[in-house]
Amino acid sequence: MKRFDKHIFICENKRPAGHPRGCCKDKGGSEVKELFKKRLKELGLNSSVRANTAGCLDACEFGVTVVVYPEQIWYGGVTGNDVEEIIQSHIINNKPVERLFINDSRFNKDE
Amino acid sequence: MKRFDKHIFICENKRPAGHPRGCCKDKGGSEVKELFKKRLKELGLNSSVRANTAGCLDACEFGVTVVVYPEQIWYGGVTGNDVEEIIQSHIINNKPVERLFINDSRFNKDE
Repeated sequence: MKRFDKHIFICENKRPAGHPRGCCKDKGGSEVKELFKKRLKELGLNSSVRANTAGCLDACEFGVTVVVYPEQIWYGGVTGNDVEEIIQSHIINNKPVERLFINDSRFNKDE
Repeated sequence: MKRFDKHIFICENKRPAGHPRGCCKDKGGSEVKELFKKRLKELGLNSSVRANTAGCLDACEFGVTVVVYPEQIWYGGVTGNDVEEIIQSHIINNKPVERLFINDSRFNKDE
């Protein structure tokens, strides 16, 4: 078994005010990260699943951006309201939450 | 194809001075991250391979800690002198650098 069954990276990159791409920090990245950590711990999952801060994932315009490994599933526009669904559906039941997929051809394509 | 062929996360977590586990920031995590970014760009790999800052990867005592996805290979004690070998051997030629594996049973085990 690998160290972590799932590894969730949440972008918390901060750009200067007014940057045209925006940034995940200003969109609530830190709150999303904290909520993932809190819920994983409450559910007793935090020894096998880890949520981590990430630097800029280069998907700023889709933020808050979250990428889940080992599958490399990319979520965009994630808010605190989405954390429970991602945990219950994707992390626990291995059913990624398609409604939150980044809607751009560079992401979430297998071929 | 996935957004990134390889995704390299380098811990840059900072703990208070004197913490018994130490921290990757104090061991040079930021320098390692910057060097990965610089070399990937120089080699023209930065559109398919990304190096990112990570928060605490919970391997503080083995830092600087680097984890490479999608394989989830864990490297410890990484310095700037190791970056080129990781890129050439693992990132480009898919041969992970075993001498840098974290030497702990919780890491780099497939079963």
